Amino acid sequence: MGIDRALLERRLDELYAIGAQPDGGTYRPLYGPAWAAAGDLVERWLKDGGLKTRRDAVGNIWGRAGDRGKSIVTGSHIDTVRRGGRLDGALGIVAGLTAVEALLKQRGEPRRPLEVVAICEEEGSRFPTNFWGSRAIIGAIDTPDAAMAAAMRERGLDPARIATAARDDIDTFVELHIEQGAVLEASGTPLAVVSAIVGTAHLEIAVTGRPDHAGTTPMDMRLDALAGAAAMIQAVESIAKSLGKPAVATVGKLAALPDQINVVPGKVVFTVDLRHSDLGGRRALEQRIRSLCATISQERRLGLAIRTLQEKPPVVMHADVRQLLTRAAQACDVQATEMVSGAGHDAQVLAARCKVGMLFVPSIGGRSHCPEEATSPEHLLLGTTVLTKALELLAY
Amino acid sequence: MGIDRALLERRLDELYAIGAQPDGGTYRPLYGPAWAAAGDLVERWLKDGGLKTRRDAVGNIWGRAGDRGKSIVTGSHIDTVRRGGRLDGALGIVAGLTAVEALLKQRGEPRRPLEVVAICEEEGSRFPTNFWGSRAIIGAIDTPDAAMAAAMRERGLDPARIATAARDDIDTFVELHIEQGAVLEASGTPLAVVSAIVGTAHLEIAVTGRPDHAGTTPMDMRLDALAGAAAMIQAVESIAKSLGKPAVATVGKLAALPDQINVVPGKVVFTVDLRHSDLGGRRALEQRIRSLCATISQERRLGLAIRTLQEKPPVVMHADVRQLLTRAAQACDVQATEMVSGAGHDAQVLAARCKVGMLFVPSIGGRSHCPEEATSPEHLLLGTTVLTKALELLAY
Repeated sequence: MGIDRALLERRLDELYAIGAQPDGGTYRPLYGPAWAAAGDLVERWLKDGGLKTRRDAVGNIWGRAGDRGKSIVTGSHIDTVRRGGRLDGALGIVAGLTAVEALLKQRGEPRRPLEVVAICEEEGSRFPTNFWGSRAIIGAIDTPDAAMAAAMRERGLDPARIATAARDDIDTFVELHIEQGAVLEASGTPLAVVSAIVGTAHLEIAVTGRPDHAGTTPMDMRLDALAGAAAMIQAVESIAKSLGKPAVATVGKLAALPDQINVVPGKVVFTVDLRHSDLGGRRALEQRIRSLCATISQERRLGLAIRTLQEKPPVVMHADVRQLLTRAAQACDVQATEMVSGAGHDAQVLAARCKVGMLFVPSIGGRSHCPEEATSPEHLLLGTTVLTKALELLAY
Repeated sequence: MGIDRALLERRLDELYAIGAQPDGGTYRPLYGPAWAAAGDLVERWLKDGGLKTRRDAVGNIWGRAGDRGKSIVTGSHIDTVRRGGRLDGALGIVAGLTAVEALLKQRGEPRRPLEVVAICEEEGSRFPTNFWGSRAIIGAIDTPDAAMAAAMRERGLDPARIATAARDDIDTFVELHIEQGAVLEASGTPLAVVSAIVGTAHLEIAVTGRPDHAGTTPMDMRLDALAGAAAMIQAVESIAKSLGKPAVATVGKLAALPDQINVVPGKVVFTVDLRHSDLGGRRALEQRIRSLCATISQERRLGLAIRTLQEKPPVVMHADVRQLLTRAAQACDVQATEMVSGAGHDAQVLAARCKVGMLFVPSIGGRSHCPEEATSPEHLLLGTTVLTKALELLAY
């Protein structure tokens, strides 16, 4: 199935330009003006491609061909992080609509409904609500707060109608996405079929010592919260390394108090982001971290309080869809590998209501969520071609 | 020599009340209203005690008795840190004036001039200028910036006249201060003669890695600036411990960037405060820290930049004054120990122009620079009594 490489690149450029930031990158926060303009553009492309479009109650944009039976859906999210890149989310939408357009042109009306969706929100970069769009689709959305409800109304969306966005007529959702890491690049693999999306836990660890004068307090009389936290940060890293792939654990945020050059820190609060594709693995990781932090705090006579901020179970991609994606890659003469996704994606939410699968193309240097986010044109074309083949196998 | 314990406590209370903060503690920043009110009170006490008072060009307040030869001076600083305690600085002024008042009353005119000084600034808690008052006394002051010059003029002080505050007619400066640490309390010692004030270096260490996605970047592909910094913080602590007392090293401030829960930190900047009473010891401490940080950064392929923010050499207290203070303690039946001061004091600056010595009384729980700063009334009386004896030995 022929995909127009130049068209693909041009559409990615056009979408990237909407929300362009003065210091590079783009920013399309949910329900903002750039988000709305991007949606209008996507809707026009969908219409031009011969799809019947509609917007649901949270602002997901749907383009559809065919009307008998449950749908085959492809797409991704249209919002971005601050100073986001050209491909995260955008690729899944542009590749999806370009693929469906090509299929309609070359194969005509599908045997079952074929849909492209631009999901309204996934990043949580305006309101603290990741997966807002896909959660609406599975009917599992929370009531928006006042600010968010006002933002919806500004776009002509009625918060009272959110429940109407729910769907139970999707058979399969497939998404092409960038890897957002450097694993494919490092192994020289052009494409991956995602086997699972990792489960994530976010912990907040508070270490309490005593703020002492940095000059007058001998080393053996200190209760240094930062020295203790440093030992814990070392432990977090060691534990994730020793458990082996795909375990990862990251201390990303840290605040030391009183944060003065000449005072021994009396309190430190830091976060741990820990992920594993297997729930048992994720729990083992967390358990070891909790246990070693407790040991360190006891040794050093420091207070320790660990709070779970968030917890998401791992989601396995549907076996049928994985097989189908592998078959599509083979049909395109592409050697695909299987890999775990370390990042979260709408597919993990949609998995509650339909079969899901994902394809990854390499990210140059592993860069993502930044203006440097890039994938070679060859890999973009290849990913879109395999996606097109998969949609053909599913819908024709 | 009888000291009125109730008078001592009452004066400390009165001074503490000036600048009292709603959330506890006091704050008397240089040239502010509370600072001015405290100076007025001290000047009145000095006059009432029979001393001739004057204010110099930076606002140091002097009270003097006698006029032949070089002076014996006692006192401390009148400014405080934010939410400072009742005794830091205040004790040296109140004990000094109460001692001199008692000597004048009981022994009459001294053989050589006896002076009490309320030094205008030591803490650097309003302008970034520690030891402003004592530096003016030794003639080593910088030109104040515009904001500080304006603050001086508000108090009727002429920045153009700063040089006139310099003195070359001080023979000996002795100061009573709280320890600000818990060493005396832990050893059950009521008084210390300070042998030296530590030398301090402040380093700023910047560690540069790469900000990566916390989910998509395997542990072995990371350049985690915070994990590297944590190893360095551990090293700082271990090195100071292994060098032994009086070496101390403290990481007090730390900032991680981008400071997001799901991003591997790409950059960390932290400070090291390191102190030793011996210049060789201080340099060895710094050298080992620099060397181990370099090793850690190389092992982890992280960037490393170390900048010296400040460097102050250790200052040994004058041998004659140390002996005299020990003699004064013995004369009062007090068993004094010798100890190194881990904190900086005006005496380290004044040592450039005169003989200096210091007495420490215990700090309860080692607390200082906070509302909990306290010393038992017995120890306050005892310190003041020994100070009085020392001034008698020096000036009569």
